[in-house]
Amino acid sequence: MTENLGWALDRAVAVAADRLAVVDGDRRLTYAELGRRVAAMGTGLHGLGVKRGDVVGVLSLNSLTHLECWLGIPRHGAILNDLNYRLSPAELSFVVDDCDTAVLIVDDAHLPVGRAILESSRSLRHLICMGSGAAPGDTIAYEDLVAGDVEPSPVVDGGDLAGIFYTGGTTGRPKGVMLTHDNLVANAKHTIIALGHVSSDRYLHAAPMFHLADGSQTYALTWVGGTHVIVPAFDAATVLETIEREGVTRTVLVPTMINMVVHHPTAHAYDLSSLRQILYGASPMPEKLQRTAMELIPSCDWVQGYGMTETSPMVTAMSAEDHRRGMMGDEPYASRLRSAGTPIVGVQAEIRRPDGALADVGEIGEIWIRGPNIMAGYWNRPEETAAALPGDGWFRSGDMAFSDKDAYLYIVDRAKDMIISGGENVYSTEVENVIYEHPAVIEAAVIGVPDEKWGERIHAVVVISAGATVDQDELIDHCRQRIARFKAPRSVEFRLDPLPKSGSGKILKRDLREPYWESEHRRVH
Amino acid sequence: MTENLGWALDRAVAVAADRLAVVDGDRRLTYAELGRRVAAMGTGLHGLGVKRGDVVGVLSLNSLTHLECWLGIPRHGAILNDLNYRLSPAELSFVVDDCDTAVLIVDDAHLPVGRAILESSRSLRHLICMGSGAAPGDTIAYEDLVAGDVEPSPVVDGGDLAGIFYTGGTTGRPKGVMLTHDNLVANAKHTIIALGHVSSDRYLHAAPMFHLADGSQTYALTWVGGTHVIVPAFDAATVLETIEREGVTRTVLVPTMINMVVHHPTAHAYDLSSLRQILYGASPMPEKLQRTAMELIPSCDWVQGYGMTETSPMVTAMSAEDHRRGMMGDEPYASRLRSAGTPIVGVQAEIRRPDGALADVGEIGEIWIRGPNIMAGYWNRPEETAAALPGDGWFRSGDMAFSDKDAYLYIVDRAKDMIISGGENVYSTEVENVIYEHPAVIEAAVIGVPDEKWGERIHAVVVISAGATVDQDELIDHCRQRIARFKAPRSVEFRLDPLPKSGSGKILKRDLREPYWESEHRRVH
Repeated sequence: MTENLGWALDRAVAVAADRLAVVDGDRRLTYAELGRRVAAMGTGLHGLGVKRGDVVGVLSLNSLTHLECWLGIPRHGAILNDLNYRLSPAELSFVVDDCDTAVLIVDDAHLPVGRAILESSRSLRHLICMGSGAAPGDTIAYEDLVAGDVEPSPVVDGGDLAGIFYTGGTTGRPKGVMLTHDNLVANAKHTIIALGHVSSDRYLHAAPMFHLADGSQTYALTWVGGTHVIVPAFDAATVLETIEREGVTRTVLVPTMINMVVHHPTAHAYDLSSLRQILYGASPMPEKLQRTAMELIPSCDWVQGYGMTETSPMVTAMSAEDHRRGMMGDEPYASRLRSAGTPIVGVQAEIRRPDGALADVGEIGEIWIRGPNIMAGYWNRPEETAAALPGDGWFRSGDMAFSDKDAYLYIVDRAKDMIISGGENVYSTEVENVIYEHPAVIEAAVIGVPDEKWGERIHAVVVISAGATVDQDELIDHCRQRIARFKAPRSVEFRLDPLPKSGSGKILKRDLREPYWESEHRRVH
Repeated sequence: MTENLGWALDRAVAVAADRLAVVDGDRRLTYAELGRRVAAMGTGLHGLGVKRGDVVGVLSLNSLTHLECWLGIPRHGAILNDLNYRLSPAELSFVVDDCDTAVLIVDDAHLPVGRAILESSRSLRHLICMGSGAAPGDTIAYEDLVAGDVEPSPVVDGGDLAGIFYTGGTTGRPKGVMLTHDNLVANAKHTIIALGHVSSDRYLHAAPMFHLADGSQTYALTWVGGTHVIVPAFDAATVLETIEREGVTRTVLVPTMINMVVHHPTAHAYDLSSLRQILYGASPMPEKLQRTAMELIPSCDWVQGYGMTETSPMVTAMSAEDHRRGMMGDEPYASRLRSAGTPIVGVQAEIRRPDGALADVGEIGEIWIRGPNIMAGYWNRPEETAAALPGDGWFRSGDMAFSDKDAYLYIVDRAKDMIISGGENVYSTEVENVIYEHPAVIEAAVIGVPDEKWGERIHAVVVISAGATVDQDELIDHCRQRIARFKAPRSVEFRLDPLPKSGSGKILKRDLREPYWESEHRRVH
C-alpha cells in the first residue's frame, strides 16, 4: 500500500487524538472522535454496496459532515464528486450521471433537488441525508453511516482516483477533472510548504468546500493536526463573528469575499487579531482593497495563490513578504503585486510559444505546468485529455501570461475564454450558447469586465435582428432559466453593427474588453 | 519525465537567480552561477562515458564542489556514492567496488587514498581531482568538468536511483542503501514541512556531507532558494566564527558537536543571535547540555530528529515547542524530552510485536516505518532487502521503542546491535569480529556506554584464554589496524568468567549494558 489521503487523518488521530479537530456551530469534535466517525464510514459505504472505484456525490453547504466526506470517501477507496450547489438542476443531473455517481449525500437544504436528481438519474442507487433530524423514509441517514463498527479499510493506492471535480467546459458541457490520491497528497504537502500550516492553526472553511481551493485545505490542515472551523456558507457578519469567537488563524477567500468582510459596517467591532494568514486567489486584489484590509487586520499576512482544478490546485504563490514590501512601494515588489507570484516548491510552470518553445522573459505565451499535482485527465474525454496533457508530464493551462526575470507570472488572458466572477469560473462559450438560443439574437460575445464587488462581471455584447425587440432584463432572465444564476450576464450591451472580427471570422474579444480594462492599472483579463 | 531531484536547483535558478547560493571560504556563488556549473557537469560526465545508472563516487571534505556533486550527479542520471572518509582504505575499496563505482571524485586531502583505491579497484575508470591547483597528470580536473557547454540532461525518472549510501552491516560488511529520486524528493519536502526552511535561511554544512543527515539538507534548502554556508569539517572555533560572519540561521549537529561548540572557551565572544534553529539527532541531548546551549543561544529553536539512511532519513521530530515547554518542567513535555518525538507529515511509524501485531501504548516493540521515503533496498543483497522490506510498504528498522498515547516514540534499544558514537553508526558485530581475530580472545561483546563527549562510547567486554596476556592498548591497536578508528573500542574490560548468555547461547548484552546506563535518567541504549 502506498501513501494515500487516509494518512493525513491517521497521523492527526495518532499525534493529536485529544486536540480539537472540528468546530461546526455547537458541535466540537476531537481528532479521536472525528477519526472514529470517518473510519466507520467505510463500513457504512460498504454496506450500501459501494466498492473501490465507485463514485459518491455530495451536495451540501459546508459542515462537519461535509468535511467527513472529504476525509472518508477517498480513504475508503471511493471517489468524491463534490457538486457545486449553485448549478442548475439540469447541470447537476448531468454531473451526477456523467461519471456514474452511485450514491448522493445531501444536506437538508438540498434534499429536494437531491430527490429530483435521484428520480431522473440513470446511475444513482441511494440518497443519503445528512440532516440533523430523522432521515426521510426514502433516504438513508448519514449518521447511521458513521456510527457503525470499523472494518479494515480496503487497499488504496496512490494512483487511485480520489475525486472527480467538475469544471465548466469550453464546449458548454462541464468536464470531470480526475485527481488521484498522489495528486492531492502532493498538493497537500506543497500547500503546507507554501503557506506554513502548523498544528496550532485554526482554519476557517468560509469559501464553499466543493471548490478545491477550500476543500483541498482539508488535507493540509488535517495532516498537521490543526483545527477546522466551519461556517455553512460565506456571510460577512458570520465570518467576522466566527473569527473572533474561535480565534481563527487562517482562511482562504476570494477578493469579492474579502471586500464584503472589510467593508462590513461592523468589521471594526470585532477582534480579528488571531488571523495570521489569508490566502486569496481567482483574481487579483485591487490595491485600495488591499490597503483597507491590511489596515483592518494588521496582524495578518496576505498570500496570493494561482491554480486550477486540473492542478489540484496550487501552482504559484505571491508571498506575504512580497505583499508587505510591495505595499510600501518598494520596487520590484510594487510592480509584482500585479503578478500571481512564482511557482511553489514541487511545481514547475513555464511560458511557452504556440510551437512549444520557451518564451523569452516578458514575452506572452501559454502557461505550461508540470508536477505530481497534475490531474490524471478528464473523465471519459480522451480527446480533451490528450490536448491538455501533451506528454512529458506537462499540462497546458490555456492561460496566457508572461514572466519577469525572477519567474513571477503575470496573467494577461485566458485562452479558454474564461471569466472568474466572485471566485466562480464561467466559460464564455457556455453563456454565449444560451444567449444564441434567444430568437432575437444574431451575434453574442460574453466577456468579463471589471467590477468592484465580483472582481469580474459577466457582460454580454449582443447584436439583435432588425425589427426584433428584446431588452436587458428579458435576456438575463432567458439565461437564468437555463444555466446557473452566477453564469448569467449581469449587464447587456446592444449593438447595431456586427461585432469586430478577425480575418478568419473569429470575434475579437480583446477589442470588446479593451475599453473596460484600459483604465485598470492591474492585470488585464 | 516525472519529478526528480533536479527540480530543486531548477526552481532556485528560476526564482532566485541573483541570490547568494553558496559561501565556501572566499568563494561566493549566486544560484545562476551554481546552476551553470551544475548543468555543465552533465556534459563533463557524459564526456567521460558516464551513462544513466552509472555510479560516481565522492571522497571529500565539505566544499562547494562537494555540494555540486550532490546536486549534479543525480540530476544527470548518475548515482552518487558519497564515501565516509573516516573508513579504512580497505573499507573504502570495498564500498567503491561493491556497487561498481565508475568514477571517483576526490579533494586534495584524499588524492593519495583515491590513487590507492584506483590502483586496486576492478570498477573505477577515472579519478577526478577537485583540488584548487592544476590537476595531477593521472587525474582529471574537476573544474574542467563544470566549465564546459550545457547539453540537455538525460531523462531522469522518480524511480531511478539517486544515490547508494553505505551503512555498516550486522554481518560486518557495509551495505549499500539504494535511495531513489522519489525517496529523496519526498524527504526534502517532509524536511521543509517539519523544519520550516525559508528562502532567507543560511544553512551551515558543518556535519560531514557524506552523511545523509547533512547531505539531504542540500535538496530542502536549495528548493526554497536558501544559502549554503560551508566549512570543510566540523571544528568548534570555525563553526562559531562562521555563524557570526555569515549570519547562519540553521544547521544540523550531533550532540557531541553541540557540546564542543557551547563549551568552547571563546563561545561567548561571538554573536550567535542569527541562529533560528538547530536540528540534532543520532542521540539524545543530556539535559545539562540542553540548558547550557539554550542559555548561550536564546534565539535558537531546538528540534530533535530521528531517522536512518534507509528512510532518507527523517522519520520523527520533537518540535521546538516540545523542547521549550519541556525545559520549563511542564508535563507531559518534560518527560517527552527523553523521546525522539512524533512521526512527521508524510511518514508512518508503528511499534510492532515480533509477530507483526501492533504493540499497545507503552509496550516495547520494533519500529516499523512506511512512506515514500523508504529505500528501494540494499544493493545486491536480496536476502537482507527481503528481511528489511517485508511488504505492504513497510521497513523494519530494527530499533526497539515504545510509544506513549500521543505517538511520541521512546527508543530503548537497537535490534541491530548498533552504537551511535559521535554521530557515526558502529555495528557491534563488525567490531567483535575484529576482536575475535586476536589469538588471545575467547569471548567478546561490544556495547555502547554513556560518554559525555561522544554520546555513546565503544566499550568491549572480553574474556581471554587462560595463560594469554593482552592489555587494553594492544587490543585497541589491533582493531585500529583493521577498521576505521571511530569503530575501535575506546575502553576494554577483561573478565575471567564466561559472559552471561541466554538459553539459546546468545550473549545477553542488555545485562552487560545495564550497570552503565542505570544511573542515566534519559533513554537507555
